[in-house]
Amino acid sequence: MSAHTETVLENAARLKEEVRKPFPGSRKIHITGSRPDLNVPMREIAQSPTSAQFGEEDNPPITVYDTSGPYTDPDADIDLRRGLPDVRAGWIAERGDTEELDAPTSAFGSERRNDPETVHLRFEHMRTPRRAASGANVTQMHYARQGIVTPEMEFVAIRENNRLQEMRAAYEAAGLLDQHAGEPFGAEIPAEFTPEFVRQEVAAGRAIIPANINHPEAEPMAIGRNFRVKVNANLGNSAVTSSIEEEVEKTIWATRWGADTVMDLSTGKHIHETREWILRNSPVPIGTVPMYQALEKVDGKAEDLTWELFRDTLIEQAEQGVDYFTIHAGVRLPYVPMTAKRKTGIVSRGGSIMAKWCLAHHTESFLYERFDDICEIMKAYDVAFSLGDGLRPGSVFDANDEAQMAELRTLGELTERAWARDCQVMIEGPGHVPMQRIKENMDAELADCSEAPFYTLGPLTTDIAPGYDHITSGIGAANIGWYGTAMLCYVTPKEHLGLPDKHDVREGMVTYKIAAHAADLAKGFPGAQVRDNALSKARFEFRWADQFNLGLDPDKAKEYHDQTLPQDSAKVAHFCSMCGPHFCSMKITQEVREYARERGLDDPETALEEGLQEKAEEFRESGGKLYHQQ
Amino acid sequence: MSAHTETVLENAARLKEEVRKPFPGSRKIHITGSRPDLNVPMREIAQSPTSAQFGEEDNPPITVYDTSGPYTDPDADIDLRRGLPDVRAGWIAERGDTEELDAPTSAFGSERRNDPETVHLRFEHMRTPRRAASGANVTQMHYARQGIVTPEMEFVAIRENNRLQEMRAAYEAAGLLDQHAGEPFGAEIPAEFTPEFVRQEVAAGRAIIPANINHPEAEPMAIGRNFRVKVNANLGNSAVTSSIEEEVEKTIWATRWGADTVMDLSTGKHIHETREWILRNSPVPIGTVPMYQALEKVDGKAEDLTWELFRDTLIEQAEQGVDYFTIHAGVRLPYVPMTAKRKTGIVSRGGSIMAKWCLAHHTESFLYERFDDICEIMKAYDVAFSLGDGLRPGSVFDANDEAQMAELRTLGELTERAWARDCQVMIEGPGHVPMQRIKENMDAELADCSEAPFYTLGPLTTDIAPGYDHITSGIGAANIGWYGTAMLCYVTPKEHLGLPDKHDVREGMVTYKIAAHAADLAKGFPGAQVRDNALSKARFEFRWADQFNLGLDPDKAKEYHDQTLPQDSAKVAHFCSMCGPHFCSMKITQEVREYARERGLDDPETALEEGLQEKAEEFRESGGKLYHQQ
Repeated sequence: MSAHTETVLENAARLKEEVRKPFPGSRKIHITGSRPDLNVPMREIAQSPTSAQFGEEDNPPITVYDTSGPYTDPDADIDLRRGLPDVRAGWIAERGDTEELDAPTSAFGSERRNDPETVHLRFEHMRTPRRAASGANVTQMHYARQGIVTPEMEFVAIRENNRLQEMRAAYEAAGLLDQHAGEPFGAEIPAEFTPEFVRQEVAAGRAIIPANINHPEAEPMAIGRNFRVKVNANLGNSAVTSSIEEEVEKTIWATRWGADTVMDLSTGKHIHETREWILRNSPVPIGTVPMYQALEKVDGKAEDLTWELFRDTLIEQAEQGVDYFTIHAGVRLPYVPMTAKRKTGIVSRGGSIMAKWCLAHHTESFLYERFDDICEIMKAYDVAFSLGDGLRPGSVFDANDEAQMAELRTLGELTERAWARDCQVMIEGPGHVPMQRIKENMDAELADCSEAPFYTLGPLTTDIAPGYDHITSGIGAANIGWYGTAMLCYVTPKEHLGLPDKHDVREGMVTYKIAAHAADLAKGFPGAQVRDNALSKARFEFRWADQFNLGLDPDKAKEYHDQTLPQDSAKVAHFCSMCGPHFCSMKITQEVREYARERGLDDPETALEEGLQEKAEEFRESGGKLYHQQ
Repeated sequence: MSAHTETVLENAARLKEEVRKPFPGSRKIHITGSRPDLNVPMREIAQSPTSAQFGEEDNPPITVYDTSGPYTDPDADIDLRRGLPDVRAGWIAERGDTEELDAPTSAFGSERRNDPETVHLRFEHMRTPRRAASGANVTQMHYARQGIVTPEMEFVAIRENNRLQEMRAAYEAAGLLDQHAGEPFGAEIPAEFTPEFVRQEVAAGRAIIPANINHPEAEPMAIGRNFRVKVNANLGNSAVTSSIEEEVEKTIWATRWGADTVMDLSTGKHIHETREWILRNSPVPIGTVPMYQALEKVDGKAEDLTWELFRDTLIEQAEQGVDYFTIHAGVRLPYVPMTAKRKTGIVSRGGSIMAKWCLAHHTESFLYERFDDICEIMKAYDVAFSLGDGLRPGSVFDANDEAQMAELRTLGELTERAWARDCQVMIEGPGHVPMQRIKENMDAELADCSEAPFYTLGPLTTDIAPGYDHITSGIGAANIGWYGTAMLCYVTPKEHLGLPDKHDVREGMVTYKIAAHAADLAKGFPGAQVRDNALSKARFEFRWADQFNLGLDPDKAKEYHDQTLPQDSAKVAHFCSMCGPHFCSMKITQEVREYARERGLDDPETALEEGLQEKAEEFRESGGKLYHQQ
């Protein structure tokens, strides 16, 4: 056993304490679909009964969407060296349109698999890569357009429903179902998700299911405006910091806090090996920016990049199982000079690499020129496009400028080209945008890119708070999610300053789960308010543990409560630190309810009438001269 | 010297290290107005020159709004026992419409001043209280409506201008003035603030200047939709925690991080003494909820409250110098039953106290009945009304319901009654509101309350993240600030869980300064983008120290940068931890600029034309069949 593998083993043990702990009060459940091998994971949060003071009743368990994979399942046998069990391998095999390859077909992939120098870093249980059989197209979009409902689509439908139908009666009885009408800005979210609905959305290009045939460990999920708003976590080591172990651990950690996908943006040595470890242990789709690795292969000299080298990198990563690639094919030569007068130029790494290449060769981007060839690779593995916004603004000043908008229109052209080959596409968006100009980004994307899912970084709504850019951007993310963005790329407190550690990942993830959920509520996503209602009811009834457990971060909520009232008794106390034990608003509300019940005013309609009547009487008594001072 | 005074002395020394440190790269400046005793404090952030690589130029210092008072002025001689120097005493005296009182006129105030049991807690240099001379009205609104421009109004005008006119040429030369057009939703922010404009806004009731004649230490500021969006910090000990020293320190701490006003919400013993210490040492207006103290006086028995006792409390606090009172006079008897079917009932402490009183006596609220008498007190000291939203929603479920809206309409009636006596008024708002229903809160407030300034708590946009409610609410705050809210009441991470410590105050404040600034940008506040532009330029040019110093929290930014790249050399390095030293987007942008300059493309107009031309040529070359796959 190599030294590295031993280290990973140690880490696997450490995971058990830090990362694997089930959420308090929660259990992992699986909903079986139309076939026994289709088991959709969810998390069920138990609630304690309401105390006699508040009317003694049972409270139903609340089902929540769960991205954490087997790690939070105490019954799962986790071994990072072996990787996660397959979720989709059977489905892929039975479609009969793929072939197993004897060896990786990329030159670099083969070389690395046989490189004695990286043996100590290498994941031991490498998969045999698969590829579409000759002439086949294995994308979910292709199936969808053929009218085929795949198990992946059914999985997504069950997952998005989140047991709302099954729990409806119990939620209803507990008064948890009421919800404000949404303002969906044109999104058309169904009351119930059917596999057929998912198929239609994927066929139309309004949603994608990132699901590389070489990443069968991942639990299928959808990114689209008519689905829950998703969150991506960016991870990855760089030339200056971080190791493979840390990246794998951070991936698991990110999914624990709700990451729907993870992008591995590593730029240092051993990108290939790091990615293998991450893929084999990730329950969520993995995205990359292949250009980062391509650049490593030419020692950082952008001008030395070639189509052949890039192509080999795409195949290398596709055969490892990357689910979506950011491709900056919209950075075209004529747009590059448009950035000259910007405050912060080109801030996208991929964008600046391509800009440099275009300038050095004074020729059109090979990504743009070879786009159809790239599509051929994507469709052979079902890697989804994430069309990169290489010219996104890096400051509020540069927001929505001509360079950004020109690139967006090109991304729209490329979307059509990808769709012509049934390749799945999402569109990356900014960046830094002041609030009043966020909506035009969303509207332009929908118009220019034919409603392909939008995937935005933030946007940051101001530049003046380094150290707090999860918040400057969380504001923008909530808004653009509401307007229609399908997936939000998180920003951590370290943005612009350093690479995120585990603490930052948690902070960034929870911030973005808030933004995504606030957006779901605002859009009127069916059942989105159940969790808010349940938590509020628990809060009102002083069910402290339920309040913590229903939250996005139960540990932190409890920790904060402990800071003021550390005694165990405070967790069952009918008061909080704000008012202390002698006075309590909640208690008074109970008295209000009594009062209303006694007088038959507990029907709000009657109450209102009675209220208006009393008001009218009072007005008459005052001689109708309430404003006699004037 | 008493033991308590000694403790405070020790704390004063401690303040010097933790709280008094000037911001790095910053100096306190004062702009003198039309009279030598009118000196408006601001903070000026120095910048280093741009290096040769980026075109070698000087960068102008940036002036920022400064709420921190003398504490961040290294020349100021701070002694908490003596309190801050007067800013306004001369102006108040020279108006000749007030009288000095021999002793406090409230029974409680007199009693406490002579109570041997609290002598060890008592602030030593008590002020002689002032009150309006018989028949006089000393509110800023009264002066404004007489056509009088007070020094307070001039102070506010200079403060809001923030030296934009004086710095215009320097900012312009550095390319910092450009700004996106705002969407002000009906706000009418002037290009330059004049004292006369401030007078008009105060006269119209669209803005208030909270400025009790007994709090001359406070630096005047305005709260109104046509001014910068302001932030309030709630502080205060409770029955279960915290001491006078802590509260004074937290007040200073909150203003350091940008609190425009502070509310002292103490509920424990010694509220009177705590408030005295806070007032004498606060450079910002102080608000309170007098009902909290009134309740203490009747040992927490709401039903025992009387108008006489409440009246005495108002006078007690007015003579100490409280600048605004939250008065829950809109919680009327007929509205109370409307809350019976709520998920979280009445969550406002003040609201629930009044609800209980109304129910116990089955009679209309004495705050409502005695509102005109309250006005008489307010105008004798110039205490501004903050008309409390006692029926605000405590959960997303309860948002915008009939109880909340009925109360808001009553607040509108009360506004008219207060204005009839030239009393200044702002209106408190929710609470918990999902994003799609925030704007109707703002619109209803403007309509129902005749454009009196709105002052909202958050709102929280979801209930599911206890421990992160600064973020759930920061999203709502940014939005409602954009829509027209004049002041945002911060929420700390401890909301719903415990009382904020210093760390929480900083986190809450910075979050809300972000929200307020994002709102200013979105409204198009003149010059708001200068700081964003300057920081972005510094970021682009790798002026790390400038980037930190221009931010809202320089210490944290530097601390985060240190975590990844601790070496001093990294603070001058032309790379960051994201990409490492061998590749840099910023570097490439420099090459883009070179390229553009060489080809005469550095004018975006030309670039665009050239871009479209090249694109057109390329299109022709491809035979116009870019989409031949379809």
